[in-house]
Amino acid sequence: MSNPKAAIVIIGNEILSGRTLDTNTNTIVKALNNIGIIVNETRTIPDNEDIIIETVRELSSKYDYVFTTGGIGPTHDDITSQALSRAFGVKYCRHPEAYKIVKELYESRGQEVTPAREKMAYTPQGAELILNEGTPPGFSIENVYVLAGVPLIMESMLKNILPTLKRGEVIESRQLEIMVGESKIATMFEELQHRYPKVDMGSYPFIKNNQHGTALVLRSSNYELLDKAYKELEELVNLSK
Amino acid sequence: MSNPKAAIVIIGNEILSGRTLDTNTNTIVKALNNIGIIVNETRTIPDNEDIIIETVRELSSKYDYVFTTGGIGPTHDDITSQALSRAFGVKYCRHPEAYKIVKELYESRGQEVTPAREKMAYTPQGAELILNEGTPPGFSIENVYVLAGVPLIMESMLKNILPTLKRGEVIESRQLEIMVGESKIATMFEELQHRYPKVDMGSYPFIKNNQHGTALVLRSSNYELLDKAYKELEELVNLSK
Repeated sequence: MSNPKAAIVIIGNEILSGRTLDTNTNTIVKALNNIGIIVNETRTIPDNEDIIIETVRELSSKYDYVFTTGGIGPTHDDITSQALSRAFGVKYCRHPEAYKIVKELYESRGQEVTPAREKMAYTPQGAELILNEGTPPGFSIENVYVLAGVPLIMESMLKNILPTLKRGEVIESRQLEIMVGESKIATMFEELQHRYPKVDMGSYPFIKNNQHGTALVLRSSNYELLDKAYKELEELVNLSK
Repeated sequence: MSNPKAAIVIIGNEILSGRTLDTNTNTIVKALNNIGIIVNETRTIPDNEDIIIETVRELSSKYDYVFTTGGIGPTHDDITSQALSRAFGVKYCRHPEAYKIVKELYESRGQEVTPAREKMAYTPQGAELILNEGTPPGFSIENVYVLAGVPLIMESMLKNILPTLKRGEVIESRQLEIMVGESKIATMFEELQHRYPKVDMGSYPFIKNNQHGTALVLRSSNYELLDKAYKELEELVNLSK
């Protein structure tokens, strides 16, 4: 079983200006990894229609799935839906079911459906809605999933689409933290990697209470091999103490 | 005066697996914005030599600056220096000054310069070092700045190179937070944007204590215009109350 491949595109000037720390990428990659979808790359791009179009076209032809966040609200800087329509050469128009949802949402609060609110019911023609309790929907077109930018709303939309995605073998990880710098274990660790080419091994230095430490992370979808390599790693680390 | 353009490349499987939340991007974009360098895009890619080469070549020809983080440590998964050497078609070799630094660093701790530690003195031939107190150096080659992945070390290296970079007009921002959903102010805000095409206006919904609010952000390097637009925004918001 092979793993579906995905890319994430964070759309938003607020990330590129440093105003906002992006946490959506981390939320999405964790969720996808849990069902065996590999995220091969992530990008952050500005609210610029041509750049959105170019990026989405490139990544949607390269990967099984593309997930975007941001730019589907009611204001003038929300241009993801228009851009996606042009990216796939379809009309940008009011989605009947989305309009019904938006209308009910605002009318239930005793509010009018102003043109700005109606805008949130516009999608590329033929888009499938990503429903979400209490907010206008996101949507998917071809293999691109268009999610909100607000983390709580994004996460809730993501939960709704996860069950519909193709799955792959889940890559599990085992981690060993040691309180020595990584240069001390580099040779041993590389030799272990050579003995287990199907286990992906990474070494991540950290500083805790002014002390240098290293997290040794083993990842594989072959759990038997993973456990074997991890056991060997534990023994090697104990030996070198 | 125009603004230099930059891209950021985060290199690391640990970001793409969700193990680590990337905060380096946010640190770098903030620092660059403060000196008028615009970050046009950011990417996260795996520890894969071919992908690093392809990405760095593409972005270094497209932008004035490229900043990478990660992959310059002593372990086998640290391959940024090799990849950069191949990307620019130069030899991957021991840098005399970097070797001196690494040697002194470990000898001052009474430790040997093992092959793994010596590896941290290897750079693309002709690279300029990015010095950093207490750690092996980063380096730059052509317009690419290669920084460490550990946030504290990355930040300290970044501080050392900022004074050497070309600057642009600093884009300042003014922000107004209002406790109404953004659909309420969308029309007013769009009209304001049309009156001030040189002020970039963004609307960012948030949820605080279960209440919907909106941050209206105005950005421009023309501060007089920025203040004028902001004053008008305040008046419009007060009128609509």
